[in-house]
Amino acid sequence: MSKKISIAIDAMGGDNSPDKTIEGVKIFIDKNKTSDDFIINIFGKEDLIIEKLKKYKINSSAINIIDSQKVVSDEETPMTAVKNSKNTSMWNCIQHQLEGKSDISLSAGNTGVLLVISRMILKMMNEVSKPALAGLWPNKNGMNVVLDLGANIECNEQNLVDFAELGSALFKSLFPNDKPKVSLLNVGSEEIKGTEMLKAASKKLRDLSSEDNFIYKGYIEGNNIMSGNSNVIITDGFTGNIALKTAEGTAKFITKNLKESLTTISLIFSFFSLKKFKDKLDPRKYNGAIFLGLNGPVVKSHGGIDSMGFYYSINLCYKIVKGNLMTEIKKNLKHSKSG
Amino acid sequence: MSKKISIAIDAMGGDNSPDKTIEGVKIFIDKNKTSDDFIINIFGKEDLIIEKLKKYKINSSAINIIDSQKVVSDEETPMTAVKNSKNTSMWNCIQHQLEGKSDISLSAGNTGVLLVISRMILKMMNEVSKPALAGLWPNKNGMNVVLDLGANIECNEQNLVDFAELGSALFKSLFPNDKPKVSLLNVGSEEIKGTEMLKAASKKLRDLSSEDNFIYKGYIEGNNIMSGNSNVIITDGFTGNIALKTAEGTAKFITKNLKESLTTISLIFSFFSLKKFKDKLDPRKYNGAIFLGLNGPVVKSHGGIDSMGFYYSINLCYKIVKGNLMTEIKKNLKHSKSG
Repeated sequence: MSKKISIAIDAMGGDNSPDKTIEGVKIFIDKNKTSDDFIINIFGKEDLIIEKLKKYKINSSAINIIDSQKVVSDEETPMTAVKNSKNTSMWNCIQHQLEGKSDISLSAGNTGVLLVISRMILKMMNEVSKPALAGLWPNKNGMNVVLDLGANIECNEQNLVDFAELGSALFKSLFPNDKPKVSLLNVGSEEIKGTEMLKAASKKLRDLSSEDNFIYKGYIEGNNIMSGNSNVIITDGFTGNIALKTAEGTAKFITKNLKESLTTISLIFSFFSLKKFKDKLDPRKYNGAIFLGLNGPVVKSHGGIDSMGFYYSINLCYKIVKGNLMTEIKKNLKHSKSG
Repeated sequence: MSKKISIAIDAMGGDNSPDKTIEGVKIFIDKNKTSDDFIINIFGKEDLIIEKLKKYKINSSAINIIDSQKVVSDEETPMTAVKNSKNTSMWNCIQHQLEGKSDISLSAGNTGVLLVISRMILKMMNEVSKPALAGLWPNKNGMNVVLDLGANIECNEQNLVDFAELGSALFKSLFPNDKPKVSLLNVGSEEIKGTEMLKAASKKLRDLSSEDNFIYKGYIEGNNIMSGNSNVIITDGFTGNIALKTAEGTAKFITKNLKESLTTISLIFSFFSLKKFKDKLDPRKYNGAIFLGLNGPVVKSHGGIDSMGFYYSINLCYKIVKGNLMTEIKKNLKHSKSG
């Protein structure tokens, strides 16, 4: 029997927790009734968690509760996190993972604290210059991996090359039947465009481009992120964070305007087709930013997401481990260093 | 009688020109039948322009043709532009403006060449550290001015402060009944977020904030660009270009998916409400990037836009001059230097 996929979940982080996190676990377990290849380690106030497990009628041998009475507060800053967050539900997740008892950690809590303590406990991989936050972003043909989304607001060319190796490995673990196609986000597609740093990164990526690891497709502009020609989009954390949030804001603005424009009668007649449209673009499906470059993956769920969104991030954790992310990362980084 | 608003139009730039540019002029003249406060100077191949004026049945004393047989090619790069673009229709527009015969120039041609020759002929204002490209971007309550959209991929704090003064002046000239509210685009809204350069720019803007020029509202994140709380969004040209194009790409992706989701029957029933929705978000209404910081404004129309979109950029030119942009800019820069 092969080793089970072991997921550490911080049940206490984010709005409306642990209700939303435990209901998310319930959805995951219901959707995976026939498989017994996973264990879910739930960290938080034991009595409260038992109460919620009862409330949502979860009775599964795949669940393991680890009592953590302390919780990271929303007001905690990364500066004070190390001192104040010891033995919180979030901290204990990462510690459990460090000890090899979980393969991945998931929290909807304070992002800054999660990044700081993950990095402190799990430590950076030797081969990586900086860790990065990666996210999923829909495109015409399926899904993009985009990084960095904000872990590093200033980057050099080697950071971007590392992000390409990390992002391609993530893409391969999530979509094993597809090939990673890397592009660098830039203000134009011609070779002469962009900063000297981007040009140097582009040259390195062109040299590293190979069928086995990733195909480098050159620069990509903001309006082509969703074209589907590339599926691993690399940028610094400042630009990536602003691009992602601008896309979110634009999507919200458009759908809100659409709703306001539709009259009751047209709403009735377009209900089912609009439902199909909403389902495809449902932001809950893209919930979960993946912290890459440490000695183990950590997933940050959106704090304000509901239980269905939290389910999608549990499922993301499951797929990442099943797809052997860490093996793929090591393979890619070896290629990068010997390339 | 006060001086007429004089607009120089490069009729030859962009796809499907001069048909689109001349038809755009036709729409502008039809919509302004009752006013006689403008002159349109059309630059291009005279015989061709006369032919198109006939084709679109334009017979107006407000039109003045200036023969320019040479045209800037799409393949021209900014490097070779100065040598090769002399006496083209684009060049002659800017030259006409320098000589005080036009107040503003408009072209749908090669962007790089337009920026280079505008800067060379009109020259930078003494008080400005770098010129910038500004654009209009819809928000919940009306319209944002956003800059820089790509003229400067690397900026320092003084550049951003200058952009705030230029952008606020543009906002005041376009929307005289509204107050400019400036925000700096950043990865978070807290004081501690962002690069040292952004923090320094933020401090300067806070010191310059005043009822007369602009109110500084602090940092803004990408998802709040369209919230309407600010209306002058300041960023470097790299980030601004990527944010704008990402928003365009997202809008296109969503409307395309919406169209594909709607069945024929729901399309019929939602036709009118969808038309209202499309009208409000019609990208042609935001056509035209304004080059600010030179001794005179220059407007770049999207090359691929149609005649209606080109009309909107002519109308933008008209409103900019009518709103006394250059006077507003000088007032703001004086404030900035003495502040």
